[in-house]
Amino acid sequence: MQRRRFLKSAGLGAAGVAAAPFISTASAQQTITWDMVTSWPKNFPALGTGANDFAARIERLSGGRMKIRVHGAGELVPALEVFDAVGEGTAEMGHSASYYWRGKTLAAQFFTAVPFGMTTTETNAWLYYGGGHELWDEVYAQFNLKPFPVGNTGTQMAGWFKKEIHSLEDMQGLKLRLPGLAGEAMNGIGVTTMNIPGSEIFTSLQTGVLDAADWVGPYNDLAFGLHQVANYYYTSAWNEPSAIIEATVNLDAWNALPDDLKAVVSEAAMASNLAMISEFALRNAEALETLVNEHGVELRRFPDDVLKALYVSSQQVLERQVAADEISRRVYDSYTAFQRKVQRFTEVGEFAYLKTREKVGA
Amino acid sequence: MQRRRFLKSAGLGAAGVAAAPFISTASAQQTITWDMVTSWPKNFPALGTGANDFAARIERLSGGRMKIRVHGAGELVPALEVFDAVGEGTAEMGHSASYYWRGKTLAAQFFTAVPFGMTTTETNAWLYYGGGHELWDEVYAQFNLKPFPVGNTGTQMAGWFKKEIHSLEDMQGLKLRLPGLAGEAMNGIGVTTMNIPGSEIFTSLQTGVLDAADWVGPYNDLAFGLHQVANYYYTSAWNEPSAIIEATVNLDAWNALPDDLKAVVSEAAMASNLAMISEFALRNAEALETLVNEHGVELRRFPDDVLKALYVSSQQVLERQVAADEISRRVYDSYTAFQRKVQRFTEVGEFAYLKTREKVGA
Repeated sequence: MQRRRFLKSAGLGAAGVAAAPFISTASAQQTITWDMVTSWPKNFPALGTGANDFAARIERLSGGRMKIRVHGAGELVPALEVFDAVGEGTAEMGHSASYYWRGKTLAAQFFTAVPFGMTTTETNAWLYYGGGHELWDEVYAQFNLKPFPVGNTGTQMAGWFKKEIHSLEDMQGLKLRLPGLAGEAMNGIGVTTMNIPGSEIFTSLQTGVLDAADWVGPYNDLAFGLHQVANYYYTSAWNEPSAIIEATVNLDAWNALPDDLKAVVSEAAMASNLAMISEFALRNAEALETLVNEHGVELRRFPDDVLKALYVSSQQVLERQVAADEISRRVYDSYTAFQRKVQRFTEVGEFAYLKTREKVGA
Repeated sequence: MQRRRFLKSAGLGAAGVAAAPFISTASAQQTITWDMVTSWPKNFPALGTGANDFAARIERLSGGRMKIRVHGAGELVPALEVFDAVGEGTAEMGHSASYYWRGKTLAAQFFTAVPFGMTTTETNAWLYYGGGHELWDEVYAQFNLKPFPVGNTGTQMAGWFKKEIHSLEDMQGLKLRLPGLAGEAMNGIGVTTMNIPGSEIFTSLQTGVLDAADWVGPYNDLAFGLHQVANYYYTSAWNEPSAIIEATVNLDAWNALPDDLKAVVSEAAMASNLAMISEFALRNAEALETLVNEHGVELRRFPDDVLKALYVSSQQVLERQVAADEISRRVYDSYTAFQRKVQRFTEVGEFAYLKTREKVGA
């Protein structure tokens, strides 16, 4: 309906896309204003502020030639309509996470997180040097979108549990909030999963609709007050060892940008990616300290039998899903082949170092 | 001698710095050409190419208004004169590592690596969100320099050894190539250290001048062929759990830049930082595979007693060094306080996840 709205808001007038060669030279002195719709409440910690940060970088880098108006979820479009809104041109830009769009294309889920998959650094190596970004471009081009990684939450937590888990037996029939593919893997080991909005998690735990819930990590979880209704905080996120945050650009709007503004958007995305990774590392540490020291939260790890069962179940769910979808198969194969290669050095390098630090008490 | 050469090469004419307000508006249409001197051979894997990458990002982002001519070590100035050359204006920009400048200011060493210190992600959190960059600005302003992180090698290796190390006893009298602070920590446990240039490591190991040598990590070590003269490859780098690569800008040249080009340099630096981290993760993994599978290199870890002794010795060296130098004391205190805070979440998040991945055999 509003597919061509961006032509107007981009300040390009009636000439629009057809006149792109002219725009490339003339637009150096014009101001291009874009709307960015997001899946987060305005100024939501790290994610909403991450969208603001990305917009501010674009504006600074372009010397003010490009302005991005950031909209919280529900202001222009609802949280889960960002993908369609940007593809159709209702807004030129979106800020969200790709796994919300599994219903559009199964392959989307690999561009957020994969159970037992890659860490943040490994994931970025895949995106920037392992063909991951090119595959993402291909998947999203089907929907008139150009994607960018603009952040990463880092390793998330495995969720809040009202009772301790001592064995696989304790997971049977447990009512857990965990959406998507990871939820299906949990179903495979006997857990009942539900997908309810983040804003309803607190009440659902309180009233007993839920026994347990996964949200993000200490920083975002503390803001929701989940420690008040569940005391056991499980680490680490087998389901989200890292989670990419995405920006999307309407492909027509992207193609109409002059080369230097394409560079502005692309480099601002990369800087925002590192900024968010760094911010989460600090804020999660601060929030964890508050949760443990001030609120008496108990940290726990899943028993080995639960982890092993989840690994087997995850592989089955993943294999089943990609079997029937050619492009998902290619993305999954690229992802897993890259992980096998890259994680060998993580083990010898960073993992070995973290063991050393633990050993000496540093 | 050539302190003001940049005025000419910046294309700003005789007006120079004094006319900065004029430059800020007029330079939008001018081309600014800067020289970047580096401590690496031209196109040296990941480091020399990292300098090229940073220069290319600046050029793309500025729409060609800013050009950076990259010079390999020895072309304009020798590798270890980059710091002085940029401070004095012989070149506007440098690409190097801060620990080479410990002789100028002890505090410089903290902006590359600290023994038993922070991982790459933790270090970036300190730089961007923990006051680290501001402290670095302060330290370098004394030398007419503005610093930027433009890369990180990630966790390095602990070096190549001709014989296996079974205990602290085996380290006594060992002749090891390991420069700087880490070398001093090794001296503290009975090792004889020497600082010889990277290009002479191979021959020194071959002829027996050295029993062991630390260089960088698999990618750079493989290029030097060190596996041909020492078969035991020790992990992980207690001395360099991450190592920041720096860009420096002559402070007068920096102050003369218009705001949008300041943003260009600063954001390009951040994008380059993430690019180098990602590239090292992949290239080190590929090189490690080659070293182990094709060249039969044996991976080893130091015994616990060696690691514990190195930890104690490192703390002593660090405390002794900062005791007499006020600014080093402040940087060290900031660094260690931040590490204590941030590493708690690394342990609960990424470290716990890596243990999970190991446990399930992912």
